[in-house]
Amino acid sequence: MSSIEWKNLDSLASYEEILKLKNHVCLKEAMAGENGAKRVEKYAVPMGGGLTFHYAARQVDDEVLKALADLAKEAQLHEKYLALLNGEVINTGEKRLVLHQLTRGQQADTVMADGTDKRAFYAAQQKKAAEFADKVHRGEITNAAGEKFTTVVQIGIGGSDLGPRAMYLALENWAKHNNTFFMDARFISNVDPDDATSVLEGIDVPRSLFVLVSKSGTTLETLTNESFVKDALAKAGLDASRHMVAVTSETSPLASSSDYLAAFFMDDYIGGRYSSTSCVGGAVLSLAFGPEVFDRFLKGAAEEDKLALETDLLKNPDMLDALIGVYERNVQGYPATAVLPYSQALSRFPAHLQQLDMESNGKSVNRFGEKVNYVTGPVIFGEPGTNGQHSFYQLLHQGTDIIPLQFVGFRNNQTGNDVNIQGSTSQQKLCANVAAQIMAFACGKHDDNPNKNFDGGRPSSIIIGDALTPEALGALLAHFENKVMFQGFVWNLNSFDQEGVQLGKVLAKRVLAHETDGALKAFSDLLHI
Amino acid sequence: MSSIEWKNLDSLASYEEILKLKNHVCLKEAMAGENGAKRVEKYAVPMGGGLTFHYAARQVDDEVLKALADLAKEAQLHEKYLALLNGEVINTGEKRLVLHQLTRGQQADTVMADGTDKRAFYAAQQKKAAEFADKVHRGEITNAAGEKFTTVVQIGIGGSDLGPRAMYLALENWAKHNNTFFMDARFISNVDPDDATSVLEGIDVPRSLFVLVSKSGTTLETLTNESFVKDALAKAGLDASRHMVAVTSETSPLASSSDYLAAFFMDDYIGGRYSSTSCVGGAVLSLAFGPEVFDRFLKGAAEEDKLALETDLLKNPDMLDALIGVYERNVQGYPATAVLPYSQALSRFPAHLQQLDMESNGKSVNRFGEKVNYVTGPVIFGEPGTNGQHSFYQLLHQGTDIIPLQFVGFRNNQTGNDVNIQGSTSQQKLCANVAAQIMAFACGKHDDNPNKNFDGGRPSSIIIGDALTPEALGALLAHFENKVMFQGFVWNLNSFDQEGVQLGKVLAKRVLAHETDGALKAFSDLLHI
Repeated sequence: MSSIEWKNLDSLASYEEILKLKNHVCLKEAMAGENGAKRVEKYAVPMGGGLTFHYAARQVDDEVLKALADLAKEAQLHEKYLALLNGEVINTGEKRLVLHQLTRGQQADTVMADGTDKRAFYAAQQKKAAEFADKVHRGEITNAAGEKFTTVVQIGIGGSDLGPRAMYLALENWAKHNNTFFMDARFISNVDPDDATSVLEGIDVPRSLFVLVSKSGTTLETLTNESFVKDALAKAGLDASRHMVAVTSETSPLASSSDYLAAFFMDDYIGGRYSSTSCVGGAVLSLAFGPEVFDRFLKGAAEEDKLALETDLLKNPDMLDALIGVYERNVQGYPATAVLPYSQALSRFPAHLQQLDMESNGKSVNRFGEKVNYVTGPVIFGEPGTNGQHSFYQLLHQGTDIIPLQFVGFRNNQTGNDVNIQGSTSQQKLCANVAAQIMAFACGKHDDNPNKNFDGGRPSSIIIGDALTPEALGALLAHFENKVMFQGFVWNLNSFDQEGVQLGKVLAKRVLAHETDGALKAFSDLLHI
Repeated sequence: MSSIEWKNLDSLASYEEILKLKNHVCLKEAMAGENGAKRVEKYAVPMGGGLTFHYAARQVDDEVLKALADLAKEAQLHEKYLALLNGEVINTGEKRLVLHQLTRGQQADTVMADGTDKRAFYAAQQKKAAEFADKVHRGEITNAAGEKFTTVVQIGIGGSDLGPRAMYLALENWAKHNNTFFMDARFISNVDPDDATSVLEGIDVPRSLFVLVSKSGTTLETLTNESFVKDALAKAGLDASRHMVAVTSETSPLASSSDYLAAFFMDDYIGGRYSSTSCVGGAVLSLAFGPEVFDRFLKGAAEEDKLALETDLLKNPDMLDALIGVYERNVQGYPATAVLPYSQALSRFPAHLQQLDMESNGKSVNRFGEKVNYVTGPVIFGEPGTNGQHSFYQLLHQGTDIIPLQFVGFRNNQTGNDVNIQGSTSQQKLCANVAAQIMAFACGKHDDNPNKNFDGGRPSSIIIGDALTPEALGALLAHFENKVMFQGFVWNLNSFDQEGVQLGKVLAKRVLAHETDGALKAFSDLLHI
């Protein structure tokens, strides 16, 4: 791997070539008529979990794709991914390996670190969480009164919350209708005391099991909420240590505490926002759906990781999505990307991707700490369709900025329930809407009344699957993780640290210690701190 | 009002002046030291509901504010607002009055339309909804078995969903802890059949009352979900007409149907995204919290509407926020705005503002249907703090784009529950974080390691109140409605239509009728429609 060179995007010859291809494709023309149908057939690539990535309505053609393939090659995206998989120190700022893919499979060499085979370590932790979950489900681990636990509550924030919560919501209805097992899960994240209060008031506390998630064991919000929960357990006359497990690193103060029924470990090589497939997601999701479902989720993610190794760009959905995104951001100059799943189950998936993407690539310095002269990560936002159609799509269709769109759609719903109204089911209406939107954005429609005119030329892609199963969800998650990783490589960023969150923490501590002056003191006074 | 001239922003002399003030304020310097404290004291203006709008950390000074006041004057913002209040046809595209402020008060002349005093009409509808809610609460209206209703379910999408849902969530915990009355509310919006299935499985159907909301009575998603609900009621052996009320316009097919226990009316002068203070919000919120609470909410909104009439820009929080936003968008060139409430109760408030703002001002043609040569509405997104800090704040602090921020914070939480950890309560930690963030964004912090360096210069404002009460919520809502209205005036847009959502609907119908070809047929086939 010594041949890898980490270079800024604007130092690459292939980038100069791509800049010449600005506005190369007139999407409106390309997607019109039978040529459009041919593009739909041609511009598609299989993903893991039975999904397919369709990019016919993105602003590319063979020439742009060839230029992107050249960029991928010159930027050594494949080699960098392989280096990451093989355990090189990719997170240079924090001098850490980046191993989240190992939580779900082994795509390259054995990685030894801290004297351990890391794949074996993560698998062992998941096995421990699975066995624990099975014991809970079988009633071998119960509350002090011998009653089975009925609810699991995750206490965590950021990556310990958004990903696992989004994954839980994504499979909640699926599990209720397709799975032999289901246990209710809730999440406490915000330091706002009303968050914990609200969750605790909505559950049967004596029959609840709490999963405390903090890699460092020092996250202020999470420890505060743990105290909140312990208070509630104490008030109910319960022994907190019979109701709590910890997910943390082996070196954290939580790791060997007797306050917990069990502890499951991740490590510094799993970034919070990449931790859904580690015990951070594994404990709560195995408890909620059973370990077999979590295994299926991991399997889908591993399939996608494997596809991300394809050296032919057109066979690599993750690298392809990444590079088209770079084209939209750096060549076309679009400021944001919307994530629009046509599935209510994915209601919080955009919020997870918002963290994943913006926290990874929202940076202005390269991996050597030098300012870059090009834009990096865009703003990411989104809501499920069709809800978004009745909300912010107005701006997407007719606003002054062009916002590329990432649709997701499934042929079948999760519950199997449906009604037929006016000749079609709700699921058909849902699918008809997403198909219609793609074309409305791409081709628009001329109207002599400019207020009703649609310029079109607004690019989108869609990921399509049969249904949102555990495997499909795993692949979907890994797709975006890998997309973000490849984009970080292109932009020459360290996508695996988050120094931008530190200053606020330092200043907040100063406020609480009343060690402030100037405007900070003035604001603190206004807030009566 | 004949003296009003509707002009494009770039035709105004005062706009030319403001363009000269690009980068006029170095926020980092302005907010440092004692000068920063003075700005905090000086740059604040009272709002309704006991709130205050603090704009010390926005990128303005007296000179910029003077230029903005000149722009406000030349753009005749006050006169245009007055014209709107007095019932002029402000929604020119659809040839409609714009009367949502009348649902909560009378700030100007009596408005007669359709032979009615419109203020009296809206008040009468709310009175009808209030009386209905009281009867439900007293057990005078029950299910067929004579049992009291325990849950209210709103069926609606877009403006019939996002605003009322956000308002309900904002007051849910407050009502549970501060109010004599509380009834659980749920919401069904998406045409995805799993949305309705999930809500119906989570409630006691025989004791649920459904509020069907559709102004036209023809919204596809809503009628489909109504059928879903009627199916469920029928399967439970229940008479649907004893479980449903309608909120619609008097001319809709729902208005006089015997399928409903009652019908409450709005009209074409209330846009969906501006309808939270009409019966669209009034029915469900009066049922959930009691009519007195809804009245308090309206009172807060009316206070804010009144302040929006101030001709002195510095006394008018809504116009001020609007104009600073225009400065950020058109002069500074920032592409997006983040809404960051430090209150878990406001978890869906950003999603509501996303619709309110992006659907109102995400447009490229002026009110006369002519293309404008400047950018209009920005992308709006946000999540509650502190959650967002552990998610996308990385990009906000160190990304390549500057994103202005709108914070909201309260001195006290809603439930009164709290814990003291490490010398401070959770609420104090929450407040300390938002104070710290404002200063971290404004002033940054130099570090010789560029990866840990914060440039600062990232503008924000904060709305502060004692607690999120019904009055505060009403004022907060009206503040943003009025901000969006004033920005629409500045950009010379019609902020009250949404032609951009039409094309997708037309194409979706075509897909369902199998009347497609080309790429649309190809995508429809892929989705098995």
